[in-house]
This record gives sequence, C-alpha cells and structure tokens, in this order.
Amino acid sequence: ECASHFLDLPQVLTEERIKKMVVQNVGWKFFYGCEKVDETVIERLFALADEMGASEKMKKMQEGQICNHIIGFPSDNRSVLHTAMRDFFDHPQPSKKAEEAKKLALEECEKLETFLKKIEKRGFTDLIQIGIGGSELGPKAIYKALSYLSKKKVHFLSNVDPDHAASILRQVDLSKTLVVSVSKSGKTLESFSNEEILREAFKKQSINPKEHIVAVTGKGSPMDDPSKYLSCFYIWDYVGGRFSSSSMCGGVVLGFALGFAYYKKFLEGAHSMDRVACEEKGMKNLPLFGALLSIWNHNFLGFSTEAVVPYSEALKEFTQHLQQCLMESNGKRIDIKGNALDFSTGPILWGEVGTNGQHSFFQLLHQGTDIVPVEFIGFLESQYKADLEVYKTTSQEKLLANLLAQSIALAVGKQNENPNKVFPGNRPSHILFSNSLDPYTLGSLLAYYEHKIAFQGFIWNINSFDQEGVQLGKVLADQVLEGIISKKEKKKIEFSLGKAYLDSL
Amino acid sequence: ECASHFLDLPQVLTEERIKKMVVQNVGWKFFYGCEKVDETVIERLFALADEMGASEKMKKMQEGQICNHIIGFPSDNRSVLHTAMRDFFDHPQPSKKAEEAKKLALEECEKLETFLKKIEKRGFTDLIQIGIGGSELGPKAIYKALSYLSKKKVHFLSNVDPDHAASILRQVDLSKTLVVSVSKSGKTLESFSNEEILREAFKKQSINPKEHIVAVTGKGSPMDDPSKYLSCFYIWDYVGGRFSSSSMCGGVVLGFALGFAYYKKFLEGAHSMDRVACEEKGMKNLPLFGALLSIWNHNFLGFSTEAVVPYSEALKEFTQHLQQCLMESNGKRIDIKGNALDFSTGPILWGEVGTNGQHSFFQLLHQGTDIVPVEFIGFLESQYKADLEVYKTTSQEKLLANLLAQSIALAVGKQNENPNKVFPGNRPSHILFSNSLDPYTLGSLLAYYEHKIAFQGFIWNINSFDQEGVQLGKVLADQVLEGIISKKEKKKIEFSLGKAYLDSL
Repeated sequence: ECASHFLDLPQVLTEERIKKMVVQNVGWKFFYGCEKVDETVIERLFALADEMGASEKMKKMQEGQICNHIIGFPSDNRSVLHTAMRDFFDHPQPSKKAEEAKKLALEECEKLETFLKKIEKRGFTDLIQIGIGGSELGPKAIYKALSYLSKKKVHFLSNVDPDHAASILRQVDLSKTLVVSVSKSGKTLESFSNEEILREAFKKQSINPKEHIVAVTGKGSPMDDPSKYLSCFYIWDYVGGRFSSSSMCGGVVLGFALGFAYYKKFLEGAHSMDRVACEEKGMKNLPLFGALLSIWNHNFLGFSTEAVVPYSEALKEFTQHLQQCLMESNGKRIDIKGNALDFSTGPILWGEVGTNGQHSFFQLLHQGTDIVPVEFIGFLESQYKADLEVYKTTSQEKLLANLLAQSIALAVGKQNENPNKVFPGNRPSHILFSNSLDPYTLGSLLAYYEHKIAFQGFIWNINSFDQEGVQLGKVLADQVLEGIISKKEKKKIEFSLGKAYLDSL
Repeated sequence: ECASHFLDLPQVLTEERIKKMVVQNVGWKFFYGCEKVDETVIERLFALADEMGASEKMKKMQEGQICNHIIGFPSDNRSVLHTAMRDFFDHPQPSKKAEEAKKLALEECEKLETFLKKIEKRGFTDLIQIGIGGSELGPKAIYKALSYLSKKKVHFLSNVDPDHAASILRQVDLSKTLVVSVSKSGKTLESFSNEEILREAFKKQSINPKEHIVAVTGKGSPMDDPSKYLSCFYIWDYVGGRFSSSSMCGGVVLGFALGFAYYKKFLEGAHSMDRVACEEKGMKNLPLFGALLSIWNHNFLGFSTEAVVPYSEALKEFTQHLQQCLMESNGKRIDIKGNALDFSTGPILWGEVGTNGQHSFFQLLHQGTDIVPVEFIGFLESQYKADLEVYKTTSQEKLLANLLAQSIALAVGKQNENPNKVFPGNRPSHILFSNSLDPYTLGSLLAYYEHKIAFQGFIWNINSFDQEGVQLGKVLADQVLEGIISKKEKKKIEFSLGKAYLDSL
C-alpha cells in the first residue's frame, strides 16, 4: 500500500492535465486526468502488459486457440469465441476455427430474422426470458439500456424463488406471450423449474406451451428438442455464459423487442471494440488501458474494490452484469498452470447510476476511510430527447455537470477548519464518454468491458473463462435437497451439516 | 490481518455447532455457527460494546437526545428520532421529546388515513413517487418487498437524467396517476426538476397538476404550499433521509398501494425491533450482535467489504437501500469529537438476491483471493404460495437448500488434487431466518439494519447521522452548471477544471 501516496492529485490536477489526458477511439473519449498516473507509470504498465503477452493472448483468443484451460490439469479445455458471434462486418477471418464459428453464428442470425418475420402476425405483446446468470444479466442489461427503442414488454425470470414466476405471471396475458428459455447445458436447475411452472400456467389456460416457448441452448442438449419448442436457437461451448449477450442469448430478445436491424447495429458496435482490442497499440487500445488502470489501482495502490457509476438511468442494470462478468471471470486464486497466487485478483465490482449514487454511497467515496476508484460513464445527449429547462439548464446538462463535478471533487478534495467539512481528495477516477447511448455505442461498451476483463486475466496470468468455484455449492445444495426429501419421507438425513439446519428452521 | 487465521471453520463446523449457535427473537432466528467466532470472542465483543456505551447511546437516541453532531464544531446538532415514527403500539414514551415526536407522527398517520379514503373514489391506478436517496431507496425497497399485496402500479422517479422521467411517462395514464413528491428540504435539485417535468406533462394534457400532486416535506419548506399540492404530509429534521422509510416518505406509497392497515403492520414490525435494540442484553439484541459480528470481520479480521444476499426475489431492491443506509451513515473518517480516525469504518456493502448471486459473483466468494463475509437472509415460506414440485421438491425448497448449502460451502470448502477444484473454505457468513416476508417481518428487518448501522457507529464513536461528504460535489456541480450557462451565453467560464472538461466533450 506504500504506493498509494504516489502522485498527489490535488497538487497536479490542472485545466491542462484534464485536456491533455484523454484518449479517443471508436466514438469514445477516455478521460484519465483524475487517475493517479503519470507518463512513466503508464509506460511501465504497458511494459507489464507486453511482458505478460496480453495483446498476443487477445489475438489468440479471437482466433479460437484454446485459452479456457488450466495447463497440466483436467479443465474445460475450450476456445473462447464470443467475438465470433459478431465478426461478420468487414475483415477476413483470422483462422479456420473463427471462420467456422462465424459461419454458425450467421446461420443463427438468419434463422432469427426468419423466425421474427414468421411470428409477427401472431401479435405477441410480451416476452418472458427464462435464464439465470449469463442467460439473464447481460441480456437484461442490454435490453434495459435500449428499451427506449422497444415496442414490447420484456420480463426476465431467473430466480428459483417461486415468487419470481408468480409476480411475472400476474403481469402478462399468456395468450400473447412468447417465452425464451435459455440454458446452454439445458439442465440449469433454476431455469428448468421455472420453465415447468410456465408450462403448467399455459396448460391451465388451455394453451399449448410448445406454440409459445423457444429454446436457446447447446446443440444436442436436453432442450434441443423440436417436439417441445416452437423453435430452437443454438449457442456453443466456446461462448461462456457471461460473454454470451451478443449470441442468441441476447439476440432473440433484442430482435423481438427492438427489431432485427437494431440487434445488428448492436453487434456492429461490439465488433468495433473487438477490433480495437485486437489491433490497437498503447492507450488507443481502450480495454487494455482500462485493464491496466484497474490493475494499477488494485495491485499497486492497494484499493480492494472498484465502482462503476454510469450517469445514465438506462444503464441501471449494467453494473450487475459487469459484476458477474468481472467477478466470475477473475475471482480466481490460481494461475493458468494451477499455482496458488500470492497477489490479489478480480476486485469486487459494485456501483449504481448517477446522480442516484451521489445520494447514497458517495458519502463514503468522499469521506470514508477506504478509497474506491471510480469508473464514470457519461453521454452528451439523452435517449428520448424529452427535456425541460429549469433555472437555465436542462436535466441532461444537470446530469452532465454532476458527473464532471464528482470526478473533480474526488480528485481535489477541500480543506476546512471544521474537520467534518474536510475532503481529503486524492481519490482516483476516470470517465468514459460518448455522444449518446444507442445500439452501436452500447455494443462497443459491452465489448470494452468483456475485453478489459479478459486483459486483466491475461496480465494476472489466470484463466478468466471457467467457473469451478460454483460447483461445490451445487453439490451441497443437492445434498441438502436430498435431506429435505428424506425429511418429508421420514427417512434418515445423510448430510449432517444440512440436517443441523433443517432441524433448526 | 493477523487475526484472519483465527478459528478454522472447516475444522470446527459440526452439526452440534450449527444447532447450538442460533439466537431467536421477535420471529427471527440468527444462525452464526459459520462465523469465525467462539464464546470468548463474543464475550469480548460485547465488552467492547459496553466500553463504548453502545446500549446507553441507543437509549438516548430513542429518547431524542442530540446525537447527530460533532462535539466542539458546527454541525447538524439534531436529535435522531426515526423510531418515534412508529412508537405508538404499547409502551409509555421514554421522554417528552420522543412523546412530542410520536404525537406529530400519529397526526400524519391519521391525516394519511383520511386522505386515502378521500381519494379512493378518484380511481387512481398508478402512483409516481418523486424522490432521490432516502426518499427513493427505502420506500422503493419496502414497496417492492411487499408488492405481492399491491393492487396498484407504483413507479419511482429519482434520476435527474431526463430519460428517467420520459421512460415512466411512457407507461402511465396521467389522468389516473397520483404523484408523491418527496423532499425534506423542498429544494432537492433532481426532485425539483422532475416535478417540473411532470407538471408540464399534466398541463399538456389539460390536467391541473395541483389535483394530482402530493408533497412530503418539512414544515415551512418551499414545498409546504397548499396552493400547489393536493395535500402535504410532514417530515422533520430529526428523521434523516436514509432512516425515513417508516415516516410519510414510505407511508404514502405503502398506504396507497397496499392499504393503510398493512402500513400499520409494517410500523408495528419496525417497532418490535426498536424495543429489541433498546432493551435486550447480549446476543438477544440482534442488531447489536449483528453490528459486533460486522466489526469483528471488518476491523479484526480485516475483510474490507460485506455482502448481503437475501434468498428472496422480493428483496431485490433491498441491498441498494442498505448500501445507502450503511455507507452514508458510516463512511466517515473522524470521530464524534472531530479527530481523524486511525482505523477503518463503514465497510462497502454490496450484494444481490440468491440464487441469482450464485450464478454471478459467488465464484469470487468461493475461490477469489479476497474474503467477503456474507449476511444471508431466508424465509421458510413464499409470498404468493404458488409453487410446483419438480423432481420431488418445490421451488421454495430448492431456494432454501441453496441458501443453507452456500453457508456450509463457504465455511468448510473442499480439498482436491486438481488445484482448480480446491475450495479453501474458512469464509464467514451468518443467516437471518424467518417464517415469511410479510409487512410485520419486513418492518422488523428494516429496523434491524437501521439499528445495526447505528450500533456500529456508536462503537466506532462516529456520527452516523450526518452526510457532510455530499456537499463538495453539490458545490462543484453548481460551478460546472454556471460554466454550462456561461458557455451557452458565450461568456467566460470561471471554473477552470470544469472548463477543461466542457471544452473537451
């Protein structure tokens, strides 16, 4: 933590520094004047990235080389090719494997376009997407971010809590509702249970569920069954759940609610950032630069968490998606060869939209004992273009003014004779800024984070693409469930720790 | 951080420990067998609470003695009497000040009951609550938690982002919409702007806004104006925003959507926990015990954040409320006399409902390098009582099994020859468990957190009731806004750091 005194922002922050320290690429401006870095630090951080072969690893990833693995031990042993889900805009494919993945993705896209035309006349008003984790968080975040373009109502059913299904069923007319059931394995406990609940609800209204439920799943999974589903869209083992938003996991809902053209625009935006991650050098490689700043703050300055604060109500659900994407990817304790790490990985990511956060946890950001680096996101224009001038400024201008003011306030602080009015300042942040949040911009923002997270993992030398850490909970939950069944059947409960709880509830 | 090796959970966790380490009070069971504590630790933690006069301070707070202050410096200098908002069920008042506060609160309650009867015939279908921070987060959390009882649609409009208002206006029929505008000062920038936007929208439809907008504000504030509002309900300076859910800030929306009787039940539940916080000794004082466990994990074991994971979809918004309540209260760097602290206060609180979190950040909880203590919340029964048995168990049973399994998995971990399948375990958690989430239970849960947070502050000897840390941002935002106006009027921008950004966007 000794490095946390490096560079005193209240001393160095000037008009010139802010104007100078900004990188532009693919429609984004990345303001980093309020980070605790100088040219030397940035140079050395990029040297670290080179040393760890970060750019090389990104290229190999996008080419489809195996990078979801632990070398020398049984592991997933897979390619990581979510970039191929949107790699059909301009350039030639870098490899046979990526070419093949692209071809399959395009087929699904075309299938979707045809399907959407076919169901148009059925007049569906609502869609319920069943899915949990990556099958919910990303699709939900991107749908909500673009809901200003939506002509339908979309509901996300994820929790195995039966109240989740009940509360959604209260809101829809099932005869006009399309259901999209998403599970790569076709065996996800929560999603399977929720699909069964919806099937029962359809039957109670004498509606044939098959005519209303679409599957998104892996080829050959138990859900790849035309006798049970209106249609089936495919995903593949080289697209991880948390990286699947641009595949059919997010595609069906975006296509249905916004129209296919907007889904395509979204993919194009994501693809633009894929190219940046692959081809740009230095700070122009925005995801790599973001990853390095994060590593600087976390590993060198010792800040244990990071907050993402988008000044856009449309990004309300986005932080939860990032939370999964980052923490499931990089919450790892061994390196790519299975050695236990002696440094801290995957920081805790949390946050809330501004200005709301200012009226919530910003007290701690400004005057707490623990320092939290902040990633701000902002836009010049609103989505609906409906605004009102109050006291000479529009709401959009007020929103913007608050965003800029917060980054300055955190950096410069303020001295005062009254200790309660002292702001120590010297707290780092940066701003990702773009013109407006449209499908293209959102696609590029999503890919920015996907690649930022991957770069962090490449530099820490960990496998960001598996999730072994979720297995133990599943195994023990099955044991407790066995205990619940045993209890109901008045048999002996085998799992003693589970029994202790079950006897005490 | 030396203490973090204290007590090895994989070694000590037995059926007996789980069964023994549970405290019961006011309908809650508090399972703490998976915390890294033994009898000696607990004894010493309570000794620390005694030394800091925690219980005495709680009594004084509820009696209305000044406790929102920094001794020796200009400060808020106020009582903290949110408990008086619900202190009308059984016992005699402890002081004249609390008696007076109770009387005023009761008057507002009666006013609300009369008002709700009067507007019944107008057939309002929707309510929009305008408010930000405490005027949104708590009311929204409690409304969503009880929405299974709601017969109306409720929308929360908080963000100054104009897209927030636009997206809500798209969903409502204004002729059938009641608006509740909440601001204690009557001057909150965001809420004022949003109220103006709604007033314009009413006027555009030739509806008189006065007939549709209710104010909740301090007596004598700019919003305390019968010529502008259908009715006005009062709050007082001794009820802080983040502690105002049980006042009219939450009361109007709960009364409107659920009916007055349920609002009363909710208050009764909160009151039950107020009595516990005031009167119980030792672990039976659940909020004090919770505060001590949190301090143990944070200050003695060195874990920098804490996660709250309710296994209940209805509590989806609850964590955001807790985030404000804890981090705005306890994100402080000076003690009650203005001395800078040399230890860490208000931890970062974050979380998500289960089972959803399991498919998101639980990877990091189980296999990350950083340890996060977890507070689980669970219920035996669902709210809607609509469930389905799949593979011999209901969804509610699956939900419950997962909750119990996670606390066990975090504690015991698992060894394996494959380093990627190793779970170090020894990660602390506890479970708050109750029968079902109804208005009474929710009230007590809310008050549990309010008092847990206050106890933490009492023990750290800080002022948990002010928020000076939000001021600097406001001042600088005004300066940036002045800059925006100057730019539009082609005048010189005074604030150079703001100018740097404005010139670069």
